Amino acid sequence: MQRQLLLLSSSRPNRQASYFSHAQGPLNDILKGLKRLLFIPYAAPGGMAYADYTTSIREAFAAIGLPQQVEGIEAYKSPALAIREAEAVFIGGGNTFLLLKTLYEMDLLEPLRRRVLDGMPYIGSSAGSNIAGLTINTSNDMAIVHPPSLNALGFLPFNINPHYPLKESELHSGESRAERIREFHALPQNRQPVLALYESSMLLLKDNQLNLLGSSSSDEPAAWLFRQGEEEAVPYGVGGDLSGLLAETL
Amino acid sequence: MQRQLLLLSSSRPNRQASYFSHAQGPLNDILKGLKRLLFIPYAAPGGMAYADYTTSIREAFAAIGLPQQVEGIEAYKSPALAIREAEAVFIGGGNTFLLLKTLYEMDLLEPLRRRVLDGMPYIGSSAGSNIAGLTINTSNDMAIVHPPSLNALGFLPFNINPHYPLKESELHSGESRAERIREFHALPQNRQPVLALYESSMLLLKDNQLNLLGSSSSDEPAAWLFRQGEEEAVPYGVGGDLSGLLAETL
Repeated sequence: MQRQLLLLSSSRPNRQASYFSHAQGPLNDILKGLKRLLFIPYAAPGGMAYADYTTSIREAFAAIGLPQQVEGIEAYKSPALAIREAEAVFIGGGNTFLLLKTLYEMDLLEPLRRRVLDGMPYIGSSAGSNIAGLTINTSNDMAIVHPPSLNALGFLPFNINPHYPLKESELHSGESRAERIREFHALPQNRQPVLALYESSMLLLKDNQLNLLGSSSSDEPAAWLFRQGEEEAVPYGVGGDLSGLLAETL
Repeated sequence: MQRQLLLLSSSRPNRQASYFSHAQGPLNDILKGLKRLLFIPYAAPGGMAYADYTTSIREAFAAIGLPQQVEGIEAYKSPALAIREAEAVFIGGGNTFLLLKTLYEMDLLEPLRRRVLDGMPYIGSSAGSNIAGLTINTSNDMAIVHPPSLNALGFLPFNINPHYPLKESELHSGESRAERIREFHALPQNRQPVLALYESSMLLLKDNQLNLLGSSSSDEPAAWLFRQGEEEAVPYGVGGDLSGLLAETL
């Protein structure tokens, strides 16, 4: 079996849109024929109970017409067993450091890797997409906790930078996002490419094909690929084929 | 002797201003009578050589009329000895994670602590200010490296968040800065207050008095104090007295 991944940059393309409205088609496709979806809420930003997060995801998925029963991993006695028996997994957004630290503490990275390499569909949004890459060194989140390692699930041989801004803010004198990613690459050990995804963009891996999905118009980029040693990032539009990246070795 | 700290949120109050133009007076005051200033460039963002960073700081300090000779720690055989013999230390901005990791790897946290607790003036800007607080969990930087710990120098019993935006960007659908700091505080173990400093703001600790400096007008806040369990952050203006924070226990 082959990896099946659907990685959303964001759970909504902008602050006005309803949740997952931009991803209805791809979600339906990757979950086709499945009855249950296991939701992992460990990125839950401060103060939100896991069960409340699961409820909000269940409602959002119902609102876009997905027929799957959404079950929160927090309802299981054994989270590892829940993953072993899942038909598909969805890891939602929040804080990427908190998410990865929790997965390390609960020893869930290996169970997730085993199932996904075996073909179980994996859906991520924001933090959940970030951890599907090699490391979370290019997360935008505040490191509100200190995970034992920043190495992530590594389903893809590159890093992801979600929520890439259409336009840089002029409201601060700090670094731009592109400058931050270039700082990552300026360190010799950080050899992996970084794929920066606009809010409305998604990455779909199926049948060994890696493609960009999204709602930007065809003449606009949906993502930028940053590589160590290359001054200019390379833009990719919706429909762009990134399958060549799958064969990269570092 | 008592700690003497001057912590700048940013090396310039906005992208148009020249470096350290907003801090000329306080820098002159804290360095009065001293001949040399040891500069630590370890936060140097990607690709910039330490010696180049030191040169740019030397030129910027000369341009605002500071008489001290600026020496880069990279020119010393023993960085620990350079710190032991320094009259004053300045740690510049860049990437906070890279800075802290380098200080850990070079075993320089203790030498710095010893000298600063003994009264040697410590100046920081951005990343250099961030590490003067308890931890770097509230840095805005990308975690381009993984330090062995996020615990920092702890010269102040709270965390710092530099580059606090005057206004939140509407360009992305991610969390606002205030939401990020609240997520930090939503975790039970993160009990320390967080002082968020606007670009033009500075924190001066002298004679056991902790005060806010800066160029905002008197009816505008220069900083916000976030506390665990408190919904609203408390604004402080230029001249605001934060000495009460020094006695906090967590």
